[in-house]
Amino acid sequence: MISIAVDAMGGDNAPREIVHGAVLASKANPVRIFLVGDESTIKDELKQHDYSSDSLEIIHTPDSISMDELPIKAMVNKPNASILVAASLVSDGKADALVSAGSTGSVVLSAAKHISRIPSVKRSAIATVYPTLNEFKRDDHLALMVDVGANVESSAKELVQFAIMGSTYVTKVRGVGSPKSALLNMGEEETKGSEKMQTAYRMLKEVPSLNFSGNIEGKDILRGMVDVIVTEGFVGNIVIKTLEGTAMAASHLGKLAFRARFSWKLGLFF
Amino acid sequence: MISIAVDAMGGDNAPREIVHGAVLASKANPVRIFLVGDESTIKDELKQHDYSSDSLEIIHTPDSISMDELPIKAMVNKPNASILVAASLVSDGKADALVSAGSTGSVVLSAAKHISRIPSVKRSAIATVYPTLNEFKRDDHLALMVDVGANVESSAKELVQFAIMGSTYVTKVRGVGSPKSALLNMGEEETKGSEKMQTAYRMLKEVPSLNFSGNIEGKDILRGMVDVIVTEGFVGNIVIKTLEGTAMAASHLGKLAFRARFSWKLGLFF
Repeated sequence: MISIAVDAMGGDNAPREIVHGAVLASKANPVRIFLVGDESTIKDELKQHDYSSDSLEIIHTPDSISMDELPIKAMVNKPNASILVAASLVSDGKADALVSAGSTGSVVLSAAKHISRIPSVKRSAIATVYPTLNEFKRDDHLALMVDVGANVESSAKELVQFAIMGSTYVTKVRGVGSPKSALLNMGEEETKGSEKMQTAYRMLKEVPSLNFSGNIEGKDILRGMVDVIVTEGFVGNIVIKTLEGTAMAASHLGKLAFRARFSWKLGLFF
Repeated sequence: MISIAVDAMGGDNAPREIVHGAVLASKANPVRIFLVGDESTIKDELKQHDYSSDSLEIIHTPDSISMDELPIKAMVNKPNASILVAASLVSDGKADALVSAGSTGSVVLSAAKHISRIPSVKRSAIATVYPTLNEFKRDDHLALMVDVGANVESSAKELVQFAIMGSTYVTKVRGVGSPKSALLNMGEEETKGSEKMQTAYRMLKEVPSLNFSGNIEGKDILRGMVDVIVTEGFVGNIVIKTLEGTAMAASHLGKLAFRARFSWKLGLFF
């Protein structure tokens, strides 16, 4: 049976929603879940639910890291924080996977401390799979963006590693041979963006294992012309959240467009 | 009568679409338009249209700057490029305004050379007005993002200046007293983002004339909770283009969501 270490204290509505989710997951799947966090608070939440104590176990720790703490400081000051204890369950072989809705920085640093990276990969990254218009005619409508926030800034060399990691993921998980990758930039030309982006472009072109197609602009992210979009975490995080926000706003704006007559800047809303 | 200097050679479909647009504008408005660029090419394009030579005048120059040239190099090598000549018409008092669809870098540098900045403003910026859900209940549904690509990177101090310039614009043009401004970041907390973003946050808080409301995330850009969103040009450019692309893609994705059953990452498309 698969065992999952859950950081019960991490997230905007923790531990309430985390415990609720764990209960639902324990009923829907044959899994064993470790709820890591403050025992009495978690117990109070569990009282609200029916659950089997065979599939849910509390691992007590009094500390947790909140969203507004500096992750790197919090890691030092709170060695027994729930996210760190949860990550250690994986490294100890007690759990097979780690789930947390907490501070991204703390999750990444905890994983870095307890779960080792692929040799020679310098930094972890967060990849997000998102739906596209699939102009590339894949079997699914998905593309991958990496990094969406594990790091704030990355070097050109790290961006090249993200491209390789993302392309490997797409090949292994989606079965796409030679997936197309692109660098998110403020123009298609090689001379666009900062020195770092221009260096990354030149380095990406020279990796034989990559099918690098050059720069991609924001307007083409959803078209599905490439399988992997590479960017620094700061930009990727804002872009992915912009996509989420736009999706929620689109139907509202469509209605507004019929009522108001000023010139919209967004093409769809004429 | 207002006179407008138009860079006839700048843009993806220049001079054809630029000349066409100038002809349409000259018929729709009482303006005088200077078409700056290669005379024989512009004349060939003008042959396709009816127009009055009273409202359209060609200013001949053989040089122009293309999208893939390094703007700063091109400015030196081509002192008579169409965008530079067009900008000089404004500084000479011959034209009241400058229009170009050409390379952003070249436009910004040409303006910097020929049209002076407000004293003590260190760098120009490009502001874009975009429609929002207007959760702030303004008379219109608009917000302003600055910078969307005049610069690639900016210092914390320059970001503060952009906030002041953007807020002033909103007050003067939209008549909003004490407009709310925010810093685009990868989280709402003051500790999020790079050192530079954290410095900018602290500096923005301390400007008495600003109504600074803290960080704003990508998901809230379209909600209209603030009047001015401040960001570096690289990020702003990608975000604005992402909004354009998402608008075009949204209706397609909505249809796909009904057909396919995989887990969408975008909240709207369940």
